[in-house]
Amino acid sequence: MAIESRQWTLASRPTGLVGPEHFNLGNTTVGEPGEGELLVKNLYLSFDPTQRGWLNDGPGYMDPVQIGAPMIGSGLAQVIESNNPDFAPGDIVNGTLPWQDYAILRNEGMMPLTKASTDFPLTWNFSVFGITTLTAYFGLTEVGAIKEGDTVLISGAAGATGSAAAQMARIMGAGKIIGVAGGPEKCDWIVKEGSCDAAIDYKNDDVAAKVLELAPEGVDLFYDNTGGPILDAVLANLADGARVVVCGGIASGYSSWTMPEGPKNYLFLILKSARMEGFLLFTYAEKFPQAMADIGKWVQEGKLAVHETISEGLENAPAALQGLFTGKNTGKAILKLADPE
Amino acid sequence: MAIESRQWTLASRPTGLVGPEHFNLGNTTVGEPGEGELLVKNLYLSFDPTQRGWLNDGPGYMDPVQIGAPMIGSGLAQVIESNNPDFAPGDIVNGTLPWQDYAILRNEGMMPLTKASTDFPLTWNFSVFGITTLTAYFGLTEVGAIKEGDTVLISGAAGATGSAAAQMARIMGAGKIIGVAGGPEKCDWIVKEGSCDAAIDYKNDDVAAKVLELAPEGVDLFYDNTGGPILDAVLANLADGARVVVCGGIASGYSSWTMPEGPKNYLFLILKSARMEGFLLFTYAEKFPQAMADIGKWVQEGKLAVHETISEGLENAPAALQGLFTGKNTGKAILKLADPE
Repeated sequence: MAIESRQWTLASRPTGLVGPEHFNLGNTTVGEPGEGELLVKNLYLSFDPTQRGWLNDGPGYMDPVQIGAPMIGSGLAQVIESNNPDFAPGDIVNGTLPWQDYAILRNEGMMPLTKASTDFPLTWNFSVFGITTLTAYFGLTEVGAIKEGDTVLISGAAGATGSAAAQMARIMGAGKIIGVAGGPEKCDWIVKEGSCDAAIDYKNDDVAAKVLELAPEGVDLFYDNTGGPILDAVLANLADGARVVVCGGIASGYSSWTMPEGPKNYLFLILKSARMEGFLLFTYAEKFPQAMADIGKWVQEGKLAVHETISEGLENAPAALQGLFTGKNTGKAILKLADPE
Repeated sequence: MAIESRQWTLASRPTGLVGPEHFNLGNTTVGEPGEGELLVKNLYLSFDPTQRGWLNDGPGYMDPVQIGAPMIGSGLAQVIESNNPDFAPGDIVNGTLPWQDYAILRNEGMMPLTKASTDFPLTWNFSVFGITTLTAYFGLTEVGAIKEGDTVLISGAAGATGSAAAQMARIMGAGKIIGVAGGPEKCDWIVKEGSCDAAIDYKNDDVAAKVLELAPEGVDLFYDNTGGPILDAVLANLADGARVVVCGGIASGYSSWTMPEGPKNYLFLILKSARMEGFLLFTYAEKFPQAMADIGKWVQEGKLAVHETISEGLENAPAALQGLFTGKNTGKAILKLADPE
């Protein structure tokens, strides 16, 4: 069996904002699965800021995507043919997929293929039960050492990780939660739907003044998804012993691991005996089961809501990726390719 | 008794490098000590980068020095008259002094007056047994979590804190110690006298290339006294789980708690699950006795050497302070005013 499939390949390396111009949509023939391989139909693609880093020909936690090679990302797919005893036709698998209609998968790499849960809507495998929620969980607990009563500030608060972080900060006992988002609609959303007590609109507010006004005693825990001027504003208004969780730098567009401007105010770390700490999620792999159990309980109890923005059609994959950096979505950005059979 | 004394007052607030032009040398009359006060003759002044911060009219851990008020700093003085039962005439006291020949002291403020030890040369109260050694001690242990075999990099390695940090990193089991200093003479000194295995000359070397060359497996612990391009170079070459101890920002001249350029490479903290952490020494006040016991033992065993640069004459106080930021000294910068009686 040979199946014709559309396929997005990397056309050129973006230096700034990634967009459709950096990818080519072509066709490929997907052949028979080899030993240990699966032939799958892709159902959903998930978009994460970290994918931008895979496009740089520089240091990273995995090899960069090569020019001309298929673009990849987290996704869900349904098995058509299997040469792997762990998976049977009809199974829905969760793993790293090429941006294609059909694909051959091999169980290798950083993120092993697993069977997706079908106990709830499929997209929840990415959103509330996906790596962004796990990232927020460990960012708050292991890195941020969140404490009862903390004043927590979250940038990118309408995004997948940020909105999960805001909700879990509430569950974990934060005193006040301040979210940063772009534009009045999103600011409205993070307060009404996203567990934030107050919002800062980085596109319209004087961010530094707002941080001071909303956190007059200083910020205990800053969960930073963006970097840039927001980071500097918060560094100048930390509480004693504050923790800055460096989760991402969307403001850089992830053109590299270098920001156009570093945090000029980082010396306030001295004045406040504070720290900035980064992390890769897989550092905490051993603790995933406990985290998933907590997250599952919170969803069941109605404490943790599911936030998704779902678009459709493989042809829209590059635009969906770009949307992460231009603030197009609230919650998890997902692209639907096909329904399972 | 009324004594005529010279006195340095703050003439204007420096915006960049501090120098003699920001101070006035005048005369004052020192009168009788009031209740609880001491009349003292000042013997030594100590110079610390943190003093630069006291000159800014902005946030800090203590009130700024006011324009027209006497400049202050750590120092040693001998008691002439005492209205405080804890101190007798002839005693040598260690505390915060005005930059004067004679002064009235009150036992108040952050740094209490204590009797200086006379079991060793008086200046050792500042140098090897002073706050810079304590700062390096807690920076390495509590903040830097130094481990056996660590590759340790130290900026400002010829300075008081840096040279203490290099020596103690060796005592604490560091695998390789790389020091950064300005100019071939100092680089020579930090290797020959200062416990460093290798030196980087920030004035002449390609710092980023040298960091890569000397720490091919990455830097485990960076003890940063300077900030600036050195910090960016090290951030791009951290080992997994690295710790960056933010001790100072001499490169900023401490014109504020804001650096002219922040560390653009701070997102590497994510890639390496690493952290940057600042601290104020007094956070660890409860642990000072243990630290001083360790330091005393190391001095006795000949493992920790005394590094001082001593100049003379009250008229040279502003120049001595400026020297901290222009790289004039190796080890602790001290100014001698008078011999004890």
